[in-house]
Amino acid sequence: MDYRKTFFVEPDRKLKLNDLDPASTPGVESKQQAADVLEAARQRLAHQQNLLYAEKKHSLLIVLQGTDAAGKDGVIARAFASFNAQGVAVANFKEPTSVELAHDFLWRVHPHAPTKGWVAIFNRSHYEDVLITRVHKLIDEKTVIDRIARIRDFETLLAENGATILKFFLHISKEEQLARFEKRLLDPERNWKISEADYAELPFWDDYVKATEEALNATSTMRAPWYVIPSNHKWFRDVAISTIVADALEDLGMRFPKPSVDLDDIRRKYHAALLAEKAGK
Amino acid sequence: MDYRKTFFVEPDRKLKLNDLDPASTPGVESKQQAADVLEAARQRLAHQQNLLYAEKKHSLLIVLQGTDAAGKDGVIARAFASFNAQGVAVANFKEPTSVELAHDFLWRVHPHAPTKGWVAIFNRSHYEDVLITRVHKLIDEKTVIDRIARIRDFETLLAENGATILKFFLHISKEEQLARFEKRLLDPERNWKISEADYAELPFWDDYVKATEEALNATSTMRAPWYVIPSNHKWFRDVAISTIVADALEDLGMRFPKPSVDLDDIRRKYHAALLAEKAGK
Repeated sequence: MDYRKTFFVEPDRKLKLNDLDPASTPGVESKQQAADVLEAARQRLAHQQNLLYAEKKHSLLIVLQGTDAAGKDGVIARAFASFNAQGVAVANFKEPTSVELAHDFLWRVHPHAPTKGWVAIFNRSHYEDVLITRVHKLIDEKTVIDRIARIRDFETLLAENGATILKFFLHISKEEQLARFEKRLLDPERNWKISEADYAELPFWDDYVKATEEALNATSTMRAPWYVIPSNHKWFRDVAISTIVADALEDLGMRFPKPSVDLDDIRRKYHAALLAEKAGK
Repeated sequence: MDYRKTFFVEPDRKLKLNDLDPASTPGVESKQQAADVLEAARQRLAHQQNLLYAEKKHSLLIVLQGTDAAGKDGVIARAFASFNAQGVAVANFKEPTSVELAHDFLWRVHPHAPTKGWVAIFNRSHYEDVLITRVHKLIDEKTVIDRIARIRDFETLLAENGATILKFFLHISKEEQLARFEKRLLDPERNWKISEADYAELPFWDDYVKATEEALNATSTMRAPWYVIPSNHKWFRDVAISTIVADALEDLGMRFPKPSVDLDDIRRKYHAALLAEKAGK
């Protein structure tokens, strides 16, 4: 199943999040089947990362957005578990500092753009600057329009420099979010995470939906596509995202580079003993 | 077996690399046993990293040094395979740029010091500035002495800010290095890595041994210990390093933080439905 087709946000078709079922699991019949597909996708990702690192022609930028408890951390821990830490840089974008606020909104983001050969994962991103800020009216509508244009420009710049950009919105229902908060309350390894702030955004749910729809519609391009991933089922979310990333990397048709030196020359010069041994056999 | 005792470089006992057998595998009888110990260590590391990330009181700095083909990349890929990418930052220190050379030698290193809650892995490090530079006489002996003192100061600064510092020298024999180069020649997925430069350091082997011995002796402290890891056998190297890191993290006695809010209060305020449901049962 080509999840890139299924979940792509088409810019010229008005996105309606409420029409998309966050509990759907297309192409996957069972949790067991999901585990098998995930394992296969992880192996593909490990291999492709190896090629990416070797070739150093491309880079990969993965953007993860979603409400609290949508599963952004979980995707990194599970869908991308097979990535080698050497070659992956995760950037978390929290509330900007005063120094960051004294610059344009992309200033703190740009240094985290992926190095060639590397994967950058943005856990939240520059999209917060047209989401939370807009919902809470920290910026006016003119600024929203300007920022969306600047985000498109920025992503074009990265793409033209060899970045594959894949953006995922983890789509869960309000009920699923509350259920996950409830699970956290019961889990001593995770209840330290709970704060009043988790609940502060709940009354703004519909505003977030609207702001998200507009931002995704306006910034989903062939070069920097958005995918809305049904994420009520974690096992489906991980399958869909790992498969999309693996498919996109495989499409690059990467190959291990050719040696830059004459291998026979190296053999003669430095591995005389090896050659002598072979000749003697 | 406490590998931290076995492999610790005692500052007041003159280190002699040639007296240490790089093929030794103390405490491990077989490759199968090694696989089991490695798997156990990986699980311990995953758990401890989770605690580190949750507590955010400590950080971990892992320094990897060794000759070409000693296995630094392999340690990251295998010994640390269970680390969550969100929480690990790998820094590679290659030949300094002209901008970096226009600063003190620690200027480019400091920004990569580990964030609280995170692990930083240095694949090569500030130690190159008293190794390759010294062997090739790019710096004079006075500078070597000064830099070693500054490295000690720098590591004290990091340790006083909550960093656990663990430094590993991957000890292989000259014959093993050549054997690994030969394997690379035969492997189409890796022979692109081969360059004349790999062989250029071979005539300086003994100079590296001497410079390494002196640097390790002078900078191995209780707070920033050096461990010389017998690394001819990759499976032993991974077991020793993963075990040392897991032991050191467990010694910190980390705990998941206590909730910062009154959980009952949260339940009452936001999970009324949950409470009602429970009461009704």
